[in-house]
Amino acid sequence: MTLVKELALRAKEASGKVAAAGPEARQKGVLAMARGLEEHVSKILAANEEDVAAARERGVRPELLDRLQLSERRVAEMAEGLRQVAGLPDVIGEVLEAWQQKDGLWIEKVRVPFGVVGMVYESRPNVTADAAGLVVKAGSAAILRGGSDALHSNRAIVTVLRASLETEGIPADAVILVDDPDRRAVDELLTAKGLVDLVIPRGGAGLIQHVVETATVPVIETGVGNCHLYVDQAADLDMASALTINAKTQRPGVCNAIETLLVHEAVADSFLPGIVASLRERGVEVRGCPRTRAVVPDVVPAGEEDWVTEYLGLILAVRVVPDLPSAIEHINRYGTHHSESIVTEDKEAAERFLREVDAAAVYHNASTRFTDGFQFGFGAEIGISTQKLHARGPMGLKELTTYKYVIRGRGQVRP
Amino acid sequence: MTLVKELALRAKEASGKVAAAGPEARQKGVLAMARGLEEHVSKILAANEEDVAAARERGVRPELLDRLQLSERRVAEMAEGLRQVAGLPDVIGEVLEAWQQKDGLWIEKVRVPFGVVGMVYESRPNVTADAAGLVVKAGSAAILRGGSDALHSNRAIVTVLRASLETEGIPADAVILVDDPDRRAVDELLTAKGLVDLVIPRGGAGLIQHVVETATVPVIETGVGNCHLYVDQAADLDMASALTINAKTQRPGVCNAIETLLVHEAVADSFLPGIVASLRERGVEVRGCPRTRAVVPDVVPAGEEDWVTEYLGLILAVRVVPDLPSAIEHINRYGTHHSESIVTEDKEAAERFLREVDAAAVYHNASTRFTDGFQFGFGAEIGISTQKLHARGPMGLKELTTYKYVIRGRGQVRP
Repeated sequence: MTLVKELALRAKEASGKVAAAGPEARQKGVLAMARGLEEHVSKILAANEEDVAAARERGVRPELLDRLQLSERRVAEMAEGLRQVAGLPDVIGEVLEAWQQKDGLWIEKVRVPFGVVGMVYESRPNVTADAAGLVVKAGSAAILRGGSDALHSNRAIVTVLRASLETEGIPADAVILVDDPDRRAVDELLTAKGLVDLVIPRGGAGLIQHVVETATVPVIETGVGNCHLYVDQAADLDMASALTINAKTQRPGVCNAIETLLVHEAVADSFLPGIVASLRERGVEVRGCPRTRAVVPDVVPAGEEDWVTEYLGLILAVRVVPDLPSAIEHINRYGTHHSESIVTEDKEAAERFLREVDAAAVYHNASTRFTDGFQFGFGAEIGISTQKLHARGPMGLKELTTYKYVIRGRGQVRP
Repeated sequence: MTLVKELALRAKEASGKVAAAGPEARQKGVLAMARGLEEHVSKILAANEEDVAAARERGVRPELLDRLQLSERRVAEMAEGLRQVAGLPDVIGEVLEAWQQKDGLWIEKVRVPFGVVGMVYESRPNVTADAAGLVVKAGSAAILRGGSDALHSNRAIVTVLRASLETEGIPADAVILVDDPDRRAVDELLTAKGLVDLVIPRGGAGLIQHVVETATVPVIETGVGNCHLYVDQAADLDMASALTINAKTQRPGVCNAIETLLVHEAVADSFLPGIVASLRERGVEVRGCPRTRAVVPDVVPAGEEDWVTEYLGLILAVRVVPDLPSAIEHINRYGTHHSESIVTEDKEAAERFLREVDAAAVYHNASTRFTDGFQFGFGAEIGISTQKLHARGPMGLKELTTYKYVIRGRGQVRP
């Protein structure tokens, strides 16, 4: 057996013990992980410094260095995140449905842990602690493959988390790091059928595509967000302006920020000059379709390539559309089924948009930036699913579980 | 674009119309499909005769011929199945959860259709009508790839179903047959990302493995059932005997029949001679581990190969185990996570089995043969999921849907 499959087998064995440990032990285990991070902060920062130095030597871009770099404050935030997860109500064992059959059989549909949850992600080392805490709290074991950039940091963090779990009687193998930087290790994890119950990729479009194409184990796709705001002919234009600015600029590097603004042609003349000026004041580069450029001539021309691009930065594409159905068609064609919003005072138009747009989260008169497990009140988030199978939108503890049917009889046979 | 992707694109366009058509139109559409089958029964039987004649010429085994062959009665049953599906309550639009955020945002989690559901299956032509009815009733469009053995039958059935849907204003492309017998057509369907939202394979282990390994679109694994009955030391042995016989012989060719009987060593001497005799009376070949053969010397020796085999016929493997944990370990190691049962009067042993066995359906003192959408009261079944993602166990209409978050505001932005 190859190394990764051995690790997965150990995780599988541990997962049964995490499930059996019960809610109190799981809560204490996650709290111990938080304390462990705080107690060993200097060890973690020293390991992180190795990663940061190596990245600096390779000439990595400043924003990527920033994602990689830890500090006392960031480690404290990781610990605080774990404490929040520990404090959430335990979800395992919840009876989702129950009924009695005519022949007396009692059927219960009960929430149970997945078993082994794999995470494949890129450089942020805080994901290591977040994912480990959520997966253990959800009664499963985590097998983690972070970016090779963050290998020293992740090793230090996982060493601490494992030792902390053991102090509360949860097996260390409930959190396992695949610390082989070879890319083939990822593919082994993705094909460990029967050992890994679910893999969640978190990172750029390239990583997610690789995972989806390689995996034979079940996968939940996350994150890629080519989101839109549509300003209808019946929009309150002040509201439209505020929502555009919030959805584009409040935090442009995240998946629920908008990348394209769609504007009904009836309001193009009145809305576009003002919003383009406001966006530029905030450093946003505006790219427009021909109709947009007819209204505001000095915007950069936008084309097909712009409609499919998740800029994750201060660029916004703008397209004027003749009507609501065209806006819906544009979104369903170019979007990534993440978060989509309409601004309108026309209730019928709003309901049609909410119904016909195919996305995890559809909004009427609100910013797309709310698609987030914390904003939705889930208390935690392992990622935002953009697929339709199992979970859609923000995934919290419940989305990290499955169910089984438990049937109790007194000798019933099928006639 | 290749042919299958063109078909998938047509299905995708149709799926929006099926969703928008509303519950009444969907119900009428499925009823029209039922009437269509009855009206065109002679055309369907003539097409089926071509398939059966060709299969006979190829020397296909009688039981496979039987699966392929239609009759007036079987077509009437297909129509009756469609009428039952039509009569089920519509599930689309159901509000699963709803809450208001502190800032006034209203969030609803609403059940919505998948969109395009692909089915890849083997020779039974009745699956064509069953799947089409369920998928349309669930608000989606179906793209069907049946076995090449049944191509003429499936063409005739789908032609009738499509024409019937149109009489009720549902687009014909809500039901599309991939009628290219080339295996590459299946692989195109399995990789039609962005067009096909879900593929469900139904058939033998080989088909299911191929689908899982090839697909880049989301898949729900179904059907393979290596199921067990465990007779505990505290079992009522008369009940154990009745359950064994029912679970093995009531319909041996289906996935929820048992393939291995596990017996606690404390009751091996008292239970095995009688059950082996009873099974043999019913034509069952018994294969046993050494401990079984020590009690009943003339049973065929069983080995590792038997523990992993889904016989789907009148063969039963028997293994004596030293205790409950060994039984659980055997099941979790060799089983396919389908349906598993314990016979015992010891409530604690039962609860441990129900908790620790990792399967879609776990039973105490009941036959595994109940794992079935109709038996569970779902009114229909598209398959039995053996994976943990999205749906587990019998899948009815609800399991053929997904959800979206619908958020209504009055200009809220993220602070």
